[in-house]
Amino acid sequence: MRRSFLLYILVFVTCYSAHSQQPADSTVFRQIYNYSLTNGKAHSWLHHLCKGIGGRLAGSAEAEEAIEYTYRVMDSIVPGNVYKQEVMVVNWKRGEKQTCFSVNKKGKLSDYRIIALGNSVGTPSGGLRAPVIEVKDFDDLSKLSRDDVEGRIVFFNEPMDQRYINTFDAYSHCGKIRWSGPAAAAPLGALATINRSLTHLIDDHPHTGSISYKDSVPKIPGAAISTVGADKLSRDLEEHPELEMILELDCEMKDDIPSSNVIGEIRGSEFPDEIIVVGGHLDSWDNGEGAHDDGAGCVQSIEVLRIFRELGIVPKRTIRAVMFINEENGLRGGNTYASEAKKSGVKHIGAIESDAGGFSPRGFFMDGDSLLVDHVRQWKELFEPYLVHDFSRKGSGADIYKLKEQGAVVMGLYPDSQRYFDYHHSETDVFENVNRRELQLGAATMAAMVYMLSEYGIPSQPEN
Amino acid sequence: MRRSFLLYILVFVTCYSAHSQQPADSTVFRQIYNYSLTNGKAHSWLHHLCKGIGGRLAGSAEAEEAIEYTYRVMDSIVPGNVYKQEVMVVNWKRGEKQTCFSVNKKGKLSDYRIIALGNSVGTPSGGLRAPVIEVKDFDDLSKLSRDDVEGRIVFFNEPMDQRYINTFDAYSHCGKIRWSGPAAAAPLGALATINRSLTHLIDDHPHTGSISYKDSVPKIPGAAISTVGADKLSRDLEEHPELEMILELDCEMKDDIPSSNVIGEIRGSEFPDEIIVVGGHLDSWDNGEGAHDDGAGCVQSIEVLRIFRELGIVPKRTIRAVMFINEENGLRGGNTYASEAKKSGVKHIGAIESDAGGFSPRGFFMDGDSLLVDHVRQWKELFEPYLVHDFSRKGSGADIYKLKEQGAVVMGLYPDSQRYFDYHHSETDVFENVNRRELQLGAATMAAMVYMLSEYGIPSQPEN
Repeated sequence: MRRSFLLYILVFVTCYSAHSQQPADSTVFRQIYNYSLTNGKAHSWLHHLCKGIGGRLAGSAEAEEAIEYTYRVMDSIVPGNVYKQEVMVVNWKRGEKQTCFSVNKKGKLSDYRIIALGNSVGTPSGGLRAPVIEVKDFDDLSKLSRDDVEGRIVFFNEPMDQRYINTFDAYSHCGKIRWSGPAAAAPLGALATINRSLTHLIDDHPHTGSISYKDSVPKIPGAAISTVGADKLSRDLEEHPELEMILELDCEMKDDIPSSNVIGEIRGSEFPDEIIVVGGHLDSWDNGEGAHDDGAGCVQSIEVLRIFRELGIVPKRTIRAVMFINEENGLRGGNTYASEAKKSGVKHIGAIESDAGGFSPRGFFMDGDSLLVDHVRQWKELFEPYLVHDFSRKGSGADIYKLKEQGAVVMGLYPDSQRYFDYHHSETDVFENVNRRELQLGAATMAAMVYMLSEYGIPSQPEN
Repeated sequence: MRRSFLLYILVFVTCYSAHSQQPADSTVFRQIYNYSLTNGKAHSWLHHLCKGIGGRLAGSAEAEEAIEYTYRVMDSIVPGNVYKQEVMVVNWKRGEKQTCFSVNKKGKLSDYRIIALGNSVGTPSGGLRAPVIEVKDFDDLSKLSRDDVEGRIVFFNEPMDQRYINTFDAYSHCGKIRWSGPAAAAPLGALATINRSLTHLIDDHPHTGSISYKDSVPKIPGAAISTVGADKLSRDLEEHPELEMILELDCEMKDDIPSSNVIGEIRGSEFPDEIIVVGGHLDSWDNGEGAHDDGAGCVQSIEVLRIFRELGIVPKRTIRAVMFINEENGLRGGNTYASEAKKSGVKHIGAIESDAGGFSPRGFFMDGDSLLVDHVRQWKELFEPYLVHDFSRKGSGADIYKLKEQGAVVMGLYPDSQRYFDYHHSETDVFENVNRRELQLGAATMAAMVYMLSEYGIPSQPEN
């Protein structure tokens, strides 16, 4: 009797909360998308980040300005609930000189547009002069002897593979060459490396990105050459194999300096100790404006807070919008956030990063315990009216993936990827190349996912 | 005995053709997408259509040049199997003058960027001068009396609704005002209409498009004003309700003249009398370059022929790539094609039009007998690896929908629609705004659908 009475109450309360008090999830989704498309501010915040501030390399005045700006914006949305988290960041300076040209006995052959790769050491002042050996990739390099390479500049010239539908798959493949090129070529006596820019386009904009040195091998300079430049250099080498390249970079690594992540929070009404992170990285490369990478992810994350506030949605769980610093050449913001979270013992149930551009959302990358991923996948149908279909891809985001170890389901917003590498890490990653509707649809998609996580939480995981 | 022997042969042949000779459909899909992304020519053909020829209004020298060009290109792919189909086209000329400004007693107030709407009559030479009455839409207009409207220019100022996820839904809503505005305002004594440009952007590019007159009401001029201009005019009217507008258009309608559809064909190997059409419209508005609308659809359709030829796929059924003429302001090409098909009694089993821009493909619009639509929908899983997910939307294309009556399943390629109305019918519909990969993915998606139709045909329909 008592049991059935309890059951009665349970059924009543469930029906009541499902039908009388709370709107259906699909209704909330519609409100979120409507609001983001008609009243969203992400696009105008992005305008300021790009045009008012510009490229935001960690350790630069612009990065600090962006920290202050996003602090102010979030404080206007969740007053008193914004704070900075100190992060020691990599402090690499590009310097002034990035020049590259070839000569032969008769004089100058060609100029090439290049850009120093992030964290690279510089060349000697006045430049480094050496012959060039062209290879496609590490397989090619491994077939060479020290005699082939010593005293030369290694030119990695592998084009992005156009066949991948998701362009990040092509990037993963070629990105290794950029990342590890100097460390792979140095043991053979190479003096520097040049890599073909990671883009699907043939144009004259070089695309930068980080490199990683190994402690055990000498640090040699690394630069990226535009795809037009790479094709030209390859032709020049065919006609003049004896040509020499003069490469000058005056970049340098300085001592780490303090900077910050910026965190804005809405406390959960029922389970305030369960945290959902939504974020992007505030730093960007300095050659463009960091529009798609990753101003977009930052302003979308702030928009999530604003959508909850403006629609009066009271989240059951705590939502944190995090502006991570120093993703591009150090991952210090993400690492600090994760280690501080671990130290404090706070419980993260979910994290979403947007760091794949402000394009039309297509789905989510997901990672975590299978139970959690399956739990999230069951919400797929709610997203399909918004053309967010793909819940099948594995992955998350560089700044949040470590929260997986702490029991969270970690995700990445998955926008249409066709144009991303047209702009990525180049001087064309500017505000004009971000479409307002596409950006705001992405923000709405993140807000909708955060809403589901905040309403339903995640199932407890079996103990291993 | 005989029967079971036949059955044996049938099973053997089926298995043989399914497993030994022919690659799996998914393998053919992969080949199609690989080829289009790596060796496709659609993007370079589009470059010539846009930069070599330019805007291609039906009846213009540019339209005829585009007919000759696509004839030559298709003849290089399917030599001897290209022909023109004569079409009498609407012959509207924009003229030289499209000016609009406002004055009050003190003199000139503002200039506004406008463009004549397609098929509009002109104003008297020297312009038409009249006060302006602003309304939002036809509902608003219907509340006005003849006294309110007579002798005035009606200014329709309804913005596109940002809430629709598929932007064509917003267009359908507002497009009626452009299409029927002059015919709706003329009976109340209006002298002309101005409509807010159909775009989601706030910028200074006016967007043209056709209007339709009614025989029973006077023909008054219609023009579109940029969204920046519309906002300015609205503010001007608030401050100076008495302002007068001087509108000058010297467009005029001339007698129909002959032009052509261009058709390139690959004959089917097993069922040559069953036709599959893939097409786009070759004419475009003259203010831009007709890049997304609809150079994209034309070059994608030609690419379908080329993909079949280059990959050595022998279609079982006949494939026709059709360049329809005069879609924008007459629909004459599509109508002629459909009526000729009906007259000749040729059997069309399917038709696909690409006329929604050269963006990342998301799915297909579909129409036809439910049996046919369900038949096509069962192929959905083959498309999903290419991020083509949405087979749920009803519709097809303006040039092919009439083939539905003749028993075909009719479809429209459904690309991502977020940016379409940024460019549609404006001077920004240029080659630079079409991404090569997105365009080639669309071509591959059409080729894959044509392949399925050509391999499997359509089920016979129950007689009504």
